[in-house]
Amino acid sequence: MRIAILLFDRLTALDAVGPYEVLSRLPGAETVFVGERKGMVRNEVGSLGLAVDATFEELPSPDIVVVPGGPGQVAHMEDGPVHAWLREADRTSTATTSVCTGSLILAAAGLLKGRRATSHWLALDQFAEWGVTPTGERVVTDGKYITAAGVSSGIDMALTLAGRLGGDALGQAIQLGIEYDPVPPYDAGSPDKAPAEVVDALRARSRFILLGED
Amino acid sequence: MRIAILLFDRLTALDAVGPYEVLSRLPGAETVFVGERKGMVRNEVGSLGLAVDATFEELPSPDIVVVPGGPGQVAHMEDGPVHAWLREADRTSTATTSVCTGSLILAAAGLLKGRRATSHWLALDQFAEWGVTPTGERVVTDGKYITAAGVSSGIDMALTLAGRLGGDALGQAIQLGIEYDPVPPYDAGSPDKAPAEVVDALRARSRFILLGED
Repeated sequence: MRIAILLFDRLTALDAVGPYEVLSRLPGAETVFVGERKGMVRNEVGSLGLAVDATFEELPSPDIVVVPGGPGQVAHMEDGPVHAWLREADRTSTATTSVCTGSLILAAAGLLKGRRATSHWLALDQFAEWGVTPTGERVVTDGKYITAAGVSSGIDMALTLAGRLGGDALGQAIQLGIEYDPVPPYDAGSPDKAPAEVVDALRARSRFILLGED
Repeated sequence: MRIAILLFDRLTALDAVGPYEVLSRLPGAETVFVGERKGMVRNEVGSLGLAVDATFEELPSPDIVVVPGGPGQVAHMEDGPVHAWLREADRTSTATTSVCTGSLILAAAGLLKGRRATSHWLALDQFAEWGVTPTGERVVTDGKYITAAGVSSGIDMALTLAGRLGGDALGQAIQLGIEYDPVPPYDAGSPDKAPAEVVDALRARSRFILLGED
Protein backbone atom coordinates (compact mmCIF):
# COMPACT_ATOMS: atom_id res chain seq x y z
CA MET A 1 0.00 0.00 0.00
CA ARG A 2 1.47 3.31 -1.08
CA ILE A 3 0.46 6.49 0.73
CA ALA A 4 1.29 9.79 -0.94
CA ILE A 5 1.35 12.97 1.14
CA LEU A 6 1.44 16.14 -0.95
CA LEU A 7 3.92 18.85 0.01
CA PHE A 8 4.07 22.40 -1.31
CA ASP A 9 5.63 25.64 -0.18
CA ARG A 10 3.87 27.52 2.62
CA LEU A 11 1.86 24.52 3.79
CA THR A 12 0.93 24.10 7.46
CA ALA A 13 3.29 21.38 8.67
CA LEU A 14 1.01 19.65 11.19
CA ASP A 15 -1.61 19.16 8.44
CA ALA A 16 0.85 16.77 6.80
CA VAL A 17 2.77 15.37 9.78
CA GLY A 18 -0.31 14.53 11.90
CA PRO A 19 -1.76 12.05 9.37
CA TYR A 20 1.76 10.90 8.49
CA GLU A 21 2.47 9.86 12.07
CA VAL A 22 -0.67 7.70 12.05
CA LEU A 23 -0.64 6.30 8.51
CA SER A 24 3.08 5.48 8.46
CA ARG A 25 2.33 3.01 11.26
CA LEU A 26 0.01 0.92 9.08
CA PRO A 27 1.67 -2.48 8.55
CA GLY A 28 3.03 -2.73 5.02
CA ALA A 29 2.46 0.92 4.24
CA GLU A 30 5.01 2.83 2.22
CA THR A 31 4.52 6.53 2.93
CA VAL A 32 6.05 9.00 0.50
CA PHE A 33 6.13 12.79 0.55
CA VAL A 34 5.47 13.93 -3.00
CA GLY A 35 5.65 17.29 -4.74
CA GLU A 36 6.38 19.15 -7.95
CA ARG A 37 10.13 18.95 -7.39
CA LYS A 38 12.32 16.87 -5.09
CA GLY A 39 14.07 18.79 -2.38
CA MET A 40 12.83 20.97 0.42
CA VAL A 41 9.61 22.86 0.91
CA ARG A 42 9.16 25.41 3.68
CA ASN A 43 6.04 25.95 5.78
CA GLU A 44 4.07 29.19 5.87
CA VAL A 45 6.40 30.94 8.30
CA GLY A 46 9.54 29.48 6.76
CA SER A 47 11.05 28.03 9.91
CA LEU A 48 10.27 24.38 9.12
CA GLY A 49 11.66 22.54 6.11
CA LEU A 50 10.25 19.20 4.94
CA ALA A 51 11.74 16.92 2.30
CA VAL A 52 9.92 16.06 -0.93
CA ASP A 53 11.19 12.59 -1.82
CA ALA A 54 9.25 11.85 -5.00
CA THR A 55 7.94 13.85 -7.93
CA PHE A 56 4.39 13.52 -9.24
CA GLU A 57 5.75 11.53 -12.22
CA GLU A 58 7.30 9.00 -9.85
CA LEU A 59 4.07 8.36 -7.96
CA PRO A 60 1.16 8.54 -10.41
CA SER A 61 -1.09 5.99 -8.70
CA PRO A 62 -0.80 5.84 -4.91
CA ASP A 63 -3.43 3.94 -2.95
CA ILE A 64 -4.01 6.79 -0.55
CA VAL A 65 -3.66 10.51 -1.16
CA VAL A 66 -3.33 13.07 1.65
CA VAL A 67 -3.59 16.78 0.81
CA PRO A 68 -2.58 19.21 3.57
CA GLY A 69 -3.57 22.85 3.67
CA GLY A 70 -2.02 26.09 4.77
CA PRO A 71 -1.59 29.53 3.21
CA GLY A 72 0.33 27.98 0.28
CA GLN A 73 -2.87 26.37 -0.99
CA VAL A 74 -3.77 29.62 -2.76
CA ALA A 75 -1.02 28.84 -5.29
CA HIS A 76 -2.86 25.63 -6.20
CA MET A 77 -6.40 26.84 -6.79
CA GLU A 78 -5.98 26.94 -10.58
CA ASP A 79 -5.42 24.02 -12.91
CA GLY A 80 -1.77 23.01 -13.04
CA PRO A 81 0.62 20.22 -12.04
CA VAL A 82 -0.96 19.70 -8.61
CA HIS A 83 -4.50 19.39 -10.00
CA ALA A 84 -3.34 17.14 -12.84
CA TRP A 85 -1.60 14.81 -10.41
CA LEU A 86 -4.53 14.79 -7.99
CA ARG A 87 -6.98 13.90 -10.75
CA GLU A 88 -4.71 11.14 -12.03
CA ALA A 89 -4.01 9.75 -8.55
CA ASP A 90 -7.68 9.93 -7.66
CA ARG A 91 -8.57 7.67 -10.59
CA THR A 92 -7.11 4.64 -8.83
CA SER A 93 -6.87 5.68 -5.17
CA THR A 94 -8.86 3.82 -2.55
CA ALA A 95 -8.96 6.94 -0.36
CA THR A 96 -8.47 10.59 -1.29
CA THR A 97 -8.13 12.70 1.83
CA SER A 98 -7.37 16.21 3.00
CA VAL A 99 -6.67 18.23 6.10
CA CYS A 100 -7.61 21.88 6.71
CA THR A 101 -7.68 23.97 3.52
CA GLY A 102 -6.30 21.02 1.58
CA SER A 103 -9.95 20.29 0.85
CA LEU A 104 -10.11 23.57 -1.10
CA ILE A 105 -7.41 22.20 -3.41
CA LEU A 106 -9.40 18.97 -3.88
CA ALA A 107 -12.53 21.01 -4.52
CA ALA A 108 -10.81 23.31 -7.02
CA ALA A 109 -9.49 20.24 -8.84
CA GLY A 110 -13.10 19.15 -9.24
CA LEU A 111 -12.85 16.10 -7.02
CA LEU A 112 -15.45 17.03 -4.39
CA LYS A 113 -18.28 18.25 -6.62
CA GLY A 114 -21.66 17.26 -5.22
CA ARG A 115 -20.07 15.85 -2.07
CA ARG A 116 -20.12 16.69 1.62
CA ALA A 117 -16.78 17.84 2.98
CA THR A 118 -15.11 19.91 5.66
CA SER A 119 -12.18 22.30 6.03
CA HIS A 120 -10.74 24.80 8.51
CA TRP A 121 -13.74 26.50 10.15
CA LEU A 122 -12.65 29.85 8.68
CA ALA A 123 -12.73 28.40 5.14
CA LEU A 124 -16.04 26.53 5.04
CA ASP A 125 -17.85 29.32 3.20
CA GLN A 126 -15.55 28.90 0.21
CA PHE A 127 -16.95 25.47 -0.74
CA ALA A 128 -20.08 26.80 -2.48
CA GLU A 129 -17.99 27.93 -5.44
CA TRP A 130 -17.18 24.32 -6.35
CA GLY A 131 -20.54 22.70 -5.58
CA VAL A 132 -19.38 21.19 -2.29
CA THR A 133 -21.64 20.99 0.77
CA PRO A 134 -19.76 22.06 3.90
CA THR A 135 -20.38 20.34 7.23
CA GLY A 136 -19.22 21.31 10.68
CA GLU A 137 -17.99 17.82 11.57
CA ARG A 138 -14.33 17.23 12.40
CA VAL A 139 -13.97 14.35 9.94
CA VAL A 140 -16.32 13.91 6.98
CA THR A 141 -16.44 10.68 4.98
CA ASP A 142 -18.27 10.73 1.65
CA GLY A 143 -17.43 7.59 -0.30
CA LYS A 144 -13.67 7.36 -0.61
CA TYR A 145 -13.26 11.07 0.14
CA ILE A 146 -12.31 11.81 3.73
CA THR A 147 -11.82 15.46 4.64
CA ALA A 148 -10.75 16.84 8.00
CA ALA A 149 -11.28 20.22 9.67
CA GLY A 150 -8.40 22.52 10.70
CA VAL A 151 -4.74 21.56 11.21
CA SER A 152 -4.80 19.11 14.15
CA SER A 153 -7.88 17.24 12.89
CA GLY A 154 -5.75 15.28 10.44
CA ILE A 155 -4.82 13.00 13.33
CA ASP A 156 -8.49 12.09 13.88
CA MET A 157 -8.98 11.68 10.12
CA ALA A 158 -6.02 9.34 9.79
CA LEU A 159 -7.11 7.22 12.77
CA THR A 160 -10.55 6.91 11.14
CA LEU A 161 -8.90 5.79 7.90
CA ALA A 162 -6.53 3.40 9.71
CA GLY A 163 -9.51 1.71 11.37
CA ARG A 164 -11.31 1.43 8.06
CA LEU A 165 -8.26 -0.09 6.39
CA GLY A 166 -7.04 -2.38 9.12
CA GLY A 167 -9.83 -2.79 11.64
CA ASP A 168 -10.58 -1.26 15.01
CA ALA A 169 -7.81 -3.07 16.91
CA LEU A 170 -5.22 -1.59 14.57
CA GLY A 171 -6.71 1.90 14.87
CA GLN A 172 -6.67 1.54 18.64
CA ALA A 173 -3.07 0.26 18.65
CA ILE A 174 -1.91 3.25 16.63
CA GLN A 175 -3.83 5.63 18.90
CA LEU A 176 -2.18 4.03 21.93
CA GLY A 177 1.24 4.05 20.25
CA ILE A 178 1.09 7.79 19.70
CA GLU A 179 -0.65 8.18 23.08
CA TYR A 180 -3.45 10.24 21.55
CA ASP A 181 -5.48 10.80 24.70
CA PRO A 182 -5.97 14.55 24.40
CA VAL A 183 -6.19 16.70 27.51
CA PRO A 184 -5.84 20.25 26.18
CA PRO A 185 -5.61 22.89 28.91
CA TYR A 186 -8.54 24.78 27.34
CA ASP A 187 -11.79 23.76 25.67
CA ALA A 188 -11.48 26.30 22.88
CA GLY A 189 -10.74 24.16 19.85
CA SER A 190 -13.85 25.01 17.82
CA PRO A 191 -15.75 28.25 17.21
CA ASP A 192 -18.77 27.01 19.18
CA LYS A 193 -16.62 26.30 22.25
CA ALA A 194 -14.07 29.13 22.32
CA PRO A 195 -14.93 32.47 24.00
CA ALA A 196 -16.71 34.78 21.53
CA GLU A 197 -13.97 37.41 21.70
CA VAL A 198 -11.33 34.82 20.78
CA VAL A 199 -13.45 33.65 17.83
CA ASP A 200 -14.03 37.22 16.66
CA ALA A 201 -10.35 38.10 16.92
CA LEU A 202 -9.36 35.10 14.81
CA ARG A 203 -12.09 35.80 12.29
CA ALA A 204 -10.73 39.34 11.94
CA ARG A 205 -7.27 37.89 11.30
CA SER A 206 -8.50 35.15 8.98
CA ARG A 207 -6.73 36.46 5.92
CA PHE A 208 -3.51 36.12 7.84
CA ILE A 209 -4.35 32.71 9.23
CA LEU A 210 -5.63 31.23 5.97
CA LEU A 211 -3.56 33.09 3.43
CA GLY A 212 -0.51 34.15 5.40
CA GLU A 213 -1.22 37.80 4.56
CA ASP A 214 -0.46 40.42 7.14
CA MET B 1 11.84 35.01 22.36
CA ARG B 2 13.84 32.23 20.78
CA ILE B 3 12.47 28.70 20.80
CA ALA B 4 14.87 25.88 19.97
CA ILE B 5 13.50 22.52 18.91
CA LEU B 6 16.11 19.76 18.93
CA LEU B 7 16.32 17.46 15.91
CA PHE B 8 18.29 14.23 15.62
CA ASP B 9 18.18 11.21 13.36
CA ARG B 10 15.46 8.64 14.00
CA LEU B 11 13.29 11.01 16.01
CA THR B 12 9.50 10.72 15.98
CA ALA B 13 8.38 13.63 13.80
CA LEU B 14 5.11 14.51 15.53
CA ASP B 15 7.01 14.89 18.84
CA ALA B 16 8.72 17.92 17.29
CA VAL B 17 6.09 19.21 14.86
CA GLY B 18 3.16 19.13 17.33
CA PRO B 19 4.75 21.64 19.75
CA TYR B 20 6.23 23.55 16.81
CA GLU B 21 2.80 24.17 15.32
CA VAL B 22 1.65 25.70 18.62
CA LEU B 23 4.78 27.56 19.75
CA SER B 24 5.55 29.07 16.33
CA ARG B 25 2.24 30.94 16.65
CA LEU B 26 3.37 32.83 19.76
CA PRO B 27 3.64 36.53 18.83
CA GLY B 28 7.27 37.53 18.50
CA ALA B 29 8.58 34.00 18.74
CA GLU B 30 11.48 32.89 16.59
CA THR B 31 11.37 29.12 16.34
CA VAL B 32 14.52 27.34 15.17
CA PHE B 33 15.20 23.67 14.54
CA VAL B 34 18.63 22.95 15.96
CA GLY B 35 20.96 19.98 15.77
CA GLU B 36 24.55 18.77 15.69
CA ARG B 37 24.88 19.60 11.99
CA LYS B 38 22.83 21.70 9.59
CA GLY B 39 21.04 19.78 6.90
CA MET B 40 18.48 17.02 7.00
CA VAL B 41 17.61 14.50 9.67
CA ARG B 42 15.32 11.54 8.99
CA ASN B 43 12.67 10.14 11.31
CA GLU B 44 12.73 6.59 12.70
CA VAL B 45 11.31 4.97 9.57
CA GLY B 46 13.25 7.20 7.20
CA SER B 47 10.34 8.45 5.13
CA LEU B 48 10.22 11.95 6.60
CA GLY B 49 13.08 14.44 6.35
CA LEU B 50 13.23 17.58 8.50
CA ALA B 51 15.67 20.46 8.12
CA VAL B 52 18.14 21.43 10.85
CA ASP B 53 18.64 25.18 10.38
CA ALA B 54 21.06 25.97 13.19
CA THR B 55 23.91 24.22 14.95
CA PHE B 56 24.25 24.06 18.73
CA GLU B 57 27.02 26.65 18.53
CA GLU B 58 24.68 29.07 16.78
CA LEU B 59 21.97 28.82 19.43
CA PRO B 60 23.62 28.47 22.84
CA SER B 61 20.99 30.27 24.89
CA PRO B 62 17.41 29.91 23.59
CA ASP B 63 14.57 31.00 25.85
CA ILE B 64 12.66 27.76 25.35
CA VAL B 65 14.03 24.30 24.64
CA VAL B 66 11.91 21.47 23.20
CA VAL B 67 13.35 17.94 23.14
CA PRO B 68 11.43 15.38 21.08
CA GLY B 69 11.78 11.63 21.48
CA GLY B 70 11.70 8.60 19.25
CA PRO B 71 13.96 5.59 18.74
CA GLY B 72 16.90 7.88 17.94
CA GLN B 73 17.04 9.03 21.56
CA VAL B 74 19.13 5.96 22.42
CA ALA B 75 22.05 7.60 20.60
CA HIS B 76 21.87 10.50 23.05
CA MET B 77 21.82 8.74 26.41
CA GLU B 78 25.53 9.28 27.02
CA ASP B 79 27.35 12.54 27.54
CA GLY B 80 28.13 14.22 24.24
CA PRO B 81 27.24 17.24 22.11
CA VAL B 82 23.49 16.96 22.76
CA HIS B 83 23.92 16.78 26.55
CA ALA B 84 26.47 19.59 26.51
CA TRP B 85 24.13 21.85 24.54
CA LEU B 86 21.12 20.96 26.70
CA ARG B 87 23.01 21.75 29.91
CA GLU B 88 24.25 25.05 28.49
CA ALA B 89 20.84 26.03 27.08
CA ASP B 90 19.14 25.06 30.32
CA ARG B 91 21.30 27.49 32.29
CA THR B 92 19.40 30.46 30.86
CA SER B 93 16.16 28.96 29.48
CA THR B 94 12.83 30.01 30.94
CA ALA B 95 11.31 26.65 29.98
CA THR B 96 13.01 23.33 29.25
CA THR B 97 10.52 20.90 27.77
CA SER B 98 10.24 17.45 26.23
CA VAL B 99 7.84 15.19 24.41
CA CYS B 100 7.71 11.39 24.63
CA THR B 101 11.13 9.80 25.26
CA GLY B 102 12.75 13.20 24.88
CA SER B 103 12.44 13.32 28.66
CA LEU B 104 14.87 10.40 28.88
CA ILE B 105 17.47 12.57 27.13
CA LEU B 106 16.83 15.41 29.61
CA ALA B 107 17.05 12.91 32.47
CA ALA B 108 20.27 11.37 31.18
CA ALA B 109 21.75 14.87 30.85
CA GLY B 110 21.06 15.31 34.56
CA LEU B 111 18.43 18.01 34.17
CA LEU B 112 15.48 16.23 35.78
CA LYS B 113 17.16 14.84 38.92
CA GLY B 114 14.81 14.96 41.90
CA ARG B 115 11.93 16.17 39.75
CA ARG B 116 8.55 14.82 38.65
CA ALA B 117 8.28 14.12 34.93
CA THR B 118 6.53 12.02 32.32
CA SER B 119 7.35 10.21 29.09
CA HIS B 120 5.80 7.70 26.70
CA TRP B 121 3.84 5.24 28.87
CA LEU B 122 6.13 2.41 27.77
CA ALA B 123 9.21 4.32 28.98
CA LEU B 124 8.15 5.54 32.44
CA ASP B 125 9.99 2.74 34.26
CA GLN B 126 13.32 4.02 32.94
CA PHE B 127 13.23 7.22 35.01
CA ALA B 128 14.37 5.59 38.28
CA GLU B 129 17.93 5.31 36.93
CA TRP B 130 18.29 9.12 36.93
CA GLY B 131 16.44 9.92 40.14
CA VAL B 132 13.31 11.14 38.37
CA THR B 133 9.81 10.46 39.72
CA PRO B 134 7.49 9.32 36.93
CA THR B 135 3.86 10.39 36.87
CA GLY B 136 1.02 9.17 34.69
CA GLU B 137 -0.18 12.67 33.79
CA ARG B 138 -0.18 13.80 30.16
CA VAL B 139 1.69 17.03 30.89
CA VAL B 140 3.86 17.44 33.99
CA THR B 141 5.11 20.84 35.12
CA ASP B 142 7.87 20.94 37.75
CA GLY B 143 9.33 24.42 37.94
CA LYS B 144 10.49 25.40 34.47
CA TYR B 145 10.57 21.77 33.34
CA ILE B 146 7.52 20.70 31.36
CA THR B 147 7.46 17.13 30.11
CA ALA B 148 4.78 15.49 27.99
CA ALA B 149 3.70 11.87 27.56
CA GLY B 150 3.83 10.03 24.21
CA VAL B 151 4.07 11.58 20.73
CA SER B 152 0.80 13.52 20.33
CA SER B 153 0.90 14.94 23.87
CA GLY B 154 3.37 17.59 22.79
CA ILE B 155 0.42 19.58 21.46
CA ASP B 156 -1.15 19.68 24.93
CA MET B 157 2.22 20.53 26.48
CA ALA B 158 2.81 23.41 24.08
CA LEU B 159 -0.68 24.84 24.63
CA THR B 160 -0.01 24.72 28.38
CA LEU B 161 3.25 26.59 27.86
CA ALA B 162 1.65 29.09 25.46
CA GLY B 163 -0.98 29.94 28.08
CA ARG B 164 1.70 30.34 30.73
CA LEU B 165 3.75 32.65 28.52
CA GLY B 166 1.00 34.73 26.94
CA GLY B 167 -2.15 34.22 28.99
CA ASP B 168 -5.25 32.10 28.56
CA ALA B 169 -6.73 34.09 25.67
CA LEU B 170 -3.60 33.48 23.63
CA GLY B 171 -3.59 29.78 24.46
CA GLN B 172 -7.24 29.59 23.44
CA ALA B 173 -6.62 31.51 20.21
CA ILE B 174 -3.85 29.12 19.22
CA GLN B 175 -6.03 26.12 20.09
CA LEU B 176 -8.82 27.54 17.93
CA GLY B 177 -6.41 28.42 15.13
CA ILE B 178 -5.20 24.82 14.89
CA GLU B 179 -8.76 23.63 15.56
CA TYR B 180 -7.61 21.32 18.35
CA ASP B 181 -10.98 19.95 19.35
CA PRO B 182 -10.11 16.26 19.35
CA VAL B 183 -12.72 13.67 18.42
CA PRO B 184 -10.69 10.50 17.93
CA PRO B 185 -12.73 7.56 16.59
CA TYR B 186 -11.60 5.40 19.54
CA ASP B 187 -10.98 6.01 23.21
CA ALA B 188 -7.78 4.02 23.29
CA GLY B 189 -5.11 6.67 23.73
CA SER B 190 -3.78 5.56 27.10
CA PRO B 191 -3.05 2.16 28.61
CA ASP B 192 -5.89 2.48 31.14
CA LYS B 193 -8.42 3.13 28.35
CA ALA B 194 -7.34 0.85 25.50
CA PRO B 195 -8.50 -2.78 25.38
CA ALA B 196 -6.16 -5.00 27.43
CA GLU B 197 -5.15 -7.06 24.38
CA VAL B 198 -4.14 -3.92 22.50
CA VAL B 199 -2.04 -2.76 25.48
CA ASP B 200 -0.42 -6.17 25.84
CA ALA B 201 0.40 -6.37 22.13
CA LEU B 202 2.09 -2.96 22.20
CA ARG B 203 3.95 -3.79 25.39
CA ALA B 204 5.29 -6.93 23.70
CA ARG B 205 6.48 -4.78 20.78
CA SER B 206 7.84 -2.02 22.98
CA ARG B 207 11.44 -2.51 21.95
CA PHE B 208 10.34 -1.83 18.39
CA ILE B 209 8.17 1.13 19.33
CA LEU B 210 10.67 2.78 21.65
CA LEU B 211 13.95 1.75 20.11
CA GLY B 212 13.01 1.00 16.51
CA GLU B 213 14.34 -2.57 16.90
CA ASP B 214 12.52 -5.35 15.10
